Amino acid sequence: MQAPNAAKNRSVGQVAPQTAVFDAALALKSGAVLPGFTLVYETYGALNAARSNAVLVCHALSGNHHVAGFHDAARRKETLGWWDNLVGPGKPLDTRRFFVVGVNNLGGCHGSSGPMSINPETNRPYGADFPLVTVEDWVAAQARLADYLGIETWAAVIGGSLGGMQALQWTLEYPQRARHGIVIASTPRLSAQNIAFNEVARQAILSDPDFHGGHYYEYDPADRHAAVKPRNGLRLARMVGHITYLSDDQLAEKFGRRMRHGKHRFNYEVEFEIESYLRHQGDKFAEVFDANSYLLATKALDYFDPAFDYAGDLRAALARAKAGFFVASFTTDWRFTPEKSREIVYALLHNGLNVSYAEIDCDAGHDSFLLDAPHYHAALTAYLQGITL
Amino acid sequence: MQAPNAAKNRSVGQVAPQTAVFDAALALKSGAVLPGFTLVYETYGALNAARSNAVLVCHALSGNHHVAGFHDAARRKETLGWWDNLVGPGKPLDTRRFFVVGVNNLGGCHGSSGPMSINPETNRPYGADFPLVTVEDWVAAQARLADYLGIETWAAVIGGSLGGMQALQWTLEYPQRARHGIVIASTPRLSAQNIAFNEVARQAILSDPDFHGGHYYEYDPADRHAAVKPRNGLRLARMVGHITYLSDDQLAEKFGRRMRHGKHRFNYEVEFEIESYLRHQGDKFAEVFDANSYLLATKALDYFDPAFDYAGDLRAALARAKAGFFVASFTTDWRFTPEKSREIVYALLHNGLNVSYAEIDCDAGHDSFLLDAPHYHAALTAYLQGITL
Repeated sequence: MQAPNAAKNRSVGQVAPQTAVFDAALALKSGAVLPGFTLVYETYGALNAARSNAVLVCHALSGNHHVAGFHDAARRKETLGWWDNLVGPGKPLDTRRFFVVGVNNLGGCHGSSGPMSINPETNRPYGADFPLVTVEDWVAAQARLADYLGIETWAAVIGGSLGGMQALQWTLEYPQRARHGIVIASTPRLSAQNIAFNEVARQAILSDPDFHGGHYYEYDPADRHAAVKPRNGLRLARMVGHITYLSDDQLAEKFGRRMRHGKHRFNYEVEFEIESYLRHQGDKFAEVFDANSYLLATKALDYFDPAFDYAGDLRAALARAKAGFFVASFTTDWRFTPEKSREIVYALLHNGLNVSYAEIDCDAGHDSFLLDAPHYHAALTAYLQGITL
Repeated sequence: MQAPNAAKNRSVGQVAPQTAVFDAALALKSGAVLPGFTLVYETYGALNAARSNAVLVCHALSGNHHVAGFHDAARRKETLGWWDNLVGPGKPLDTRRFFVVGVNNLGGCHGSSGPMSINPETNRPYGADFPLVTVEDWVAAQARLADYLGIETWAAVIGGSLGGMQALQWTLEYPQRARHGIVIASTPRLSAQNIAFNEVARQAILSDPDFHGGHYYEYDPADRHAAVKPRNGLRLARMVGHITYLSDDQLAEKFGRRMRHGKHRFNYEVEFEIESYLRHQGDKFAEVFDANSYLLATKALDYFDPAFDYAGDLRAALARAKAGFFVASFTTDWRFTPEKSREIVYALLHNGLNVSYAEIDCDAGHDSFLLDAPHYHAALTAYLQGITL
């Protein structure tokens, strides 16, 4: 066990995002072409002379490039990276050993080209005209960033959930450029239930009167604090999404039927604490995230299906992979169940690949991948330490 | 196996709803008082001379009094009762033997007093001013209907889901007036996750600009086909609810990742069949149901908790019961899991009551209770046949 102070000292410290601009056009899977694009990214640790120690961290639905450290020392907690418990000196993804890169994906809302960017054809924000992007497109854009950074081969590409899909896709699209794929709490494809929840989220946003066909930025008043956005749709989308990230057990333990006022009040205000929590999560997210980016990310999730071009045969789809793999799932994850991770593991094993698989007993549901359940980080640490540089 | 024609002949045939008006005030659990109220109900079969063969069917969230038979011979399928597969001559709840009563609950939108009724104080529809009602209130109102029909004691009170809560509550509130409680796919209380899903549904409705604080009826134009209602909020509420009624397995089998056009189209139209199904369910429901009634019913679900006044001790809470019980759950029901039904069963057994429990292997999730999974109907038939009249 690390004392809290020791953990604090293991931070990568204050970090700042960087920007890479790519002038060459990028042909997307949809057939659309981006004439050029920008990626915002962060790096932690140092690239070694052999350029063999770089690790790419891919983010999930609501993540971004800010993986570790903090942006503002005065607001350290509020500006902490989303996977800071994993990345830093002495942490599982040890920045004393690895050069770690976080990147905001295309279509995002944290600085990379996306719906909030200016469309060169109209000189106005793309809005809904930003093309739909896929996991394959993200990986292609990330490969451009690797070129830009002088990284021919990643020691590993790692991600959880939608990030895990990108890690897997890297090993398929660029089998020579990713020596290890680390796929956590992910799935080889969304189930009908997964798509259904995404569809509810999309419909909540698309039907919000403030969506304005995806061009809501144009309705902004001069006072940008009153920005027009489909706040309510995004709030509902996040609420329903959030329920699926957590386990029934964990909600029972954290909230159960605990009441705000100790008794029934017979109105539509908060009665049960779970209602308050959910509203707060929704409100918070609606302020900081962009609805068009959210829509795009849910579609990228739906579309991901490497076996699609192989008549559903995942084993055949993964035959291209050459990497070593670490796959992890969580027992209470009902969004992407351990069964889905096992599908990936079996398909990889049938292709004669080296696969480490950990099924972690953790009560936190899908979001377990963001936490530091002891066995989870221990298994990941061991795997990462075994990677030769 | 019954041939289709035999099943058809086992219908109770064409039926018509009846109305009972109650002038005496009803004090609700919230403290509000209804000065009087109306219940719409249907009956099937005949009350015997001893008045000992009456069975009350309680409905769930979106159900009503129209349990069996059809309202319009020309539109037989469209006007079929929601539990027609269970109730009729020769069916599990055999109308040759039992006098079956279906009733629309207080706060509903199918003829009983509810938000669409005229508030005598204002001469306008109650809307959001209709008081919040609970399972206890429903049972109290149903007891008035029993009095009105001359039924001192029900042979059984039966219901699924929220209907099962009413059946259980009958055995607690009126232990001498319900000889058997039949509690199907139900729970002794909602979990935090259950409440969370209800809260998303409520927020979708409450935040719909067409909700107008629950007084949307007043915004109706003369042409009632263009009725103002929070259609979109109700649609979203139903979509998210519907996902929780079905099992992951069943969705996988029925829809999987089947695409509407055989390929990705990269837009927000229907791509996967599950999206089309979900939209259709939402649209259909939003036309036929009232949003205020939906809000009330979700709150009744949240509030139900017989153990609340017993410091959470369900065994103590059920000590009042005298009835015999049939409890059934379904293996793939993740909304109200078999574990929840077992809690009821154990608490009843600890009180020395006679309990039959069936855990039915059925892939249809929570909605299994509406289907005729063979072992389910067989077990229920056996139990109902064993009831002495």
